[in-house]
Amino acid sequence: MSAGEGAPEIAVPDLIEGLKVVALGGGHGLFNTLTALRYLTADVTAVVTVADDGGSSGRLRAELGLIPPGDLRMALAALMAAPAALEARRRVDPASADRHQRWARVLQHRFGGYGALAGHPIGNLLLSGLNEVTGDVVKALDDLTDLFDVDGRVLPMADVPLVIEADVSGLEKDPRVSRVIRGQVAVATTPGKPRRVRLIPDAPAGCAQAAAAIREADVVTLGPGSWFSSVIPHVLVPDQLDALSETSARKILFVNLAAEAGETTGYSVERHLHVLHAHAPTLRVDDVVVDSASVPEGAEREYLERAAGRFGARLRVADLAVPGTAVHDPAKTAATVVGLID
Amino acid sequence: MSAGEGAPEIAVPDLIEGLKVVALGGGHGLFNTLTALRYLTADVTAVVTVADDGGSSGRLRAELGLIPPGDLRMALAALMAAPAALEARRRVDPASADRHQRWARVLQHRFGGYGALAGHPIGNLLLSGLNEVTGDVVKALDDLTDLFDVDGRVLPMADVPLVIEADVSGLEKDPRVSRVIRGQVAVATTPGKPRRVRLIPDAPAGCAQAAAAIREADVVTLGPGSWFSSVIPHVLVPDQLDALSETSARKILFVNLAAEAGETTGYSVERHLHVLHAHAPTLRVDDVVVDSASVPEGAEREYLERAAGRFGARLRVADLAVPGTAVHDPAKTAATVVGLID
Repeated sequence: MSAGEGAPEIAVPDLIEGLKVVALGGGHGLFNTLTALRYLTADVTAVVTVADDGGSSGRLRAELGLIPPGDLRMALAALMAAPAALEARRRVDPASADRHQRWARVLQHRFGGYGALAGHPIGNLLLSGLNEVTGDVVKALDDLTDLFDVDGRVLPMADVPLVIEADVSGLEKDPRVSRVIRGQVAVATTPGKPRRVRLIPDAPAGCAQAAAAIREADVVTLGPGSWFSSVIPHVLVPDQLDALSETSARKILFVNLAAEAGETTGYSVERHLHVLHAHAPTLRVDDVVVDSASVPEGAEREYLERAAGRFGARLRVADLAVPGTAVHDPAKTAATVVGLID
Repeated sequence: MSAGEGAPEIAVPDLIEGLKVVALGGGHGLFNTLTALRYLTADVTAVVTVADDGGSSGRLRAELGLIPPGDLRMALAALMAAPAALEARRRVDPASADRHQRWARVLQHRFGGYGALAGHPIGNLLLSGLNEVTGDVVKALDDLTDLFDVDGRVLPMADVPLVIEADVSGLEKDPRVSRVIRGQVAVATTPGKPRRVRLIPDAPAGCAQAAAAIREADVVTLGPGSWFSSVIPHVLVPDQLDALSETSARKILFVNLAAEAGETTGYSVERHLHVLHAHAPTLRVDDVVVDSASVPEGAEREYLERAAGRFGARLRVADLAVPGTAVHDPAKTAATVVGLID
């Protein structure tokens, strides 16, 4: 892969037999990465943040005291509902591909109306119910991948629901004063600038199966996604950080294509890297992948290379975006990963 | 089968290759009948009342305006979770039997706590959600039998939610005065005596697939179950009554083992037959099966035979009960059906 020469020709890459990939993230960013990785292999494990307190997940969490299911459900749907072109290339039986698509749509469907169920995706209720029955969210997730005959696995970052807390500046007249904001929704939508996030409980035990998957992987990806609420939390789980330092996997960090309204308003790519490094100074990755459109030339590019260097990583610049959007194109993302591991 | 000689030796009957059975009913009565019929064949279609307005079904129906899912879910669970002895005899792979058992338990599991979900069985939410997605309760049910790899089929009595309304006497000082009571729960728990029930809408269109299944069946069973709210409604659907009159299936009516507190308090077996006949004078069945313990000798037995004769049926007396209960024993019920069709 070359750096910064504009859009290369993206051919959909071939499946790589036996490749084990683990993707760390949450929300829509992880959904896209999982879609991309399924171009390369059926052996994809999603490791998902579990600190959401908004929407259906927040309501279920408050009511049942269980792990918020939303990001887990979305990851499961991503592993089920591949683009039709991908399924054809993978020589999946069209009836089976269609069945996966239909059930993924069902899991994602939100109840309508204005009642007690309104807004809850069916998959959130199914996963929460199974979690209540089994008392074990990993077992519940494995039961669902078995039921829907899904390749790959979905795991939580931790076995218990987590809370995100942030030190946020810019909320007082004095810009040096920071305030503590608690909760993922509050952090993601603060008009201030988050400086540092913490998990409650602090340094939570990681999910053992997730740490094992990281250790056994050939490739581990982190990001893109909501930086403070979906990406950084992964490096605040010591078991996960240990697994990341011990694995021989190729570790690839995907930086967001654009700053996100709310938690990273006005953040440059370099700033994304600085803030991640500040939260996990021992984190080492092999590649920091940024979109060609977000890389300036000249001195700023050097700063970016230096920021990547703090992770022991090389800066990799690629055409990643769905044109005209801030969304990673799955085929381009997949091709980028292939370019790195070839 | 002989009549009234006490408890015969019940051997678990063999599967009858190709036998098509349709069971009409609702609630726990239907659950037991389905369990029994699966001793005989994998080709069991449950046709289920859809007038429930209580509990989880009532809440979902009020919130979403969809068919009440509870009795449908229970029928599905009955087709999934056979007694282990049955599964072994049917030479079902133990892993598959275990999987069915586990998922049946999940579908039946009710959310705990005191919140918006408390008391809803997971299966009710899954079926209601699928119904919302597909806009077609039959499609939703077929999707679930496909997903859980269930032999047999579950169908609603009608494609729209129904309301039960009853003329109830004994609520006023003057016993000749009757009052109109509306709703399944109200009818099932009235301190008065229901005399006549109606469906709202009146004479609803039946489920086309249910009528077709009745026409193609070798055996159709009706009852046992809550007489006014789960059994009689089936003969108030003209399409279903037509199918029953046209089918060449053996039609078997199972009368409840005991009067039910509430809607049939104090009802004799004969009274059960009279009230059903009053609601559907054209209904013909081949066999009226009653438990040996509920059949008196002498003149009363003659009355009972005469009551069965009004359906063109022969009275069949068999040992059916789980000893010491008013519940039909599935193996005994299955053996009774075999005795009738042999």
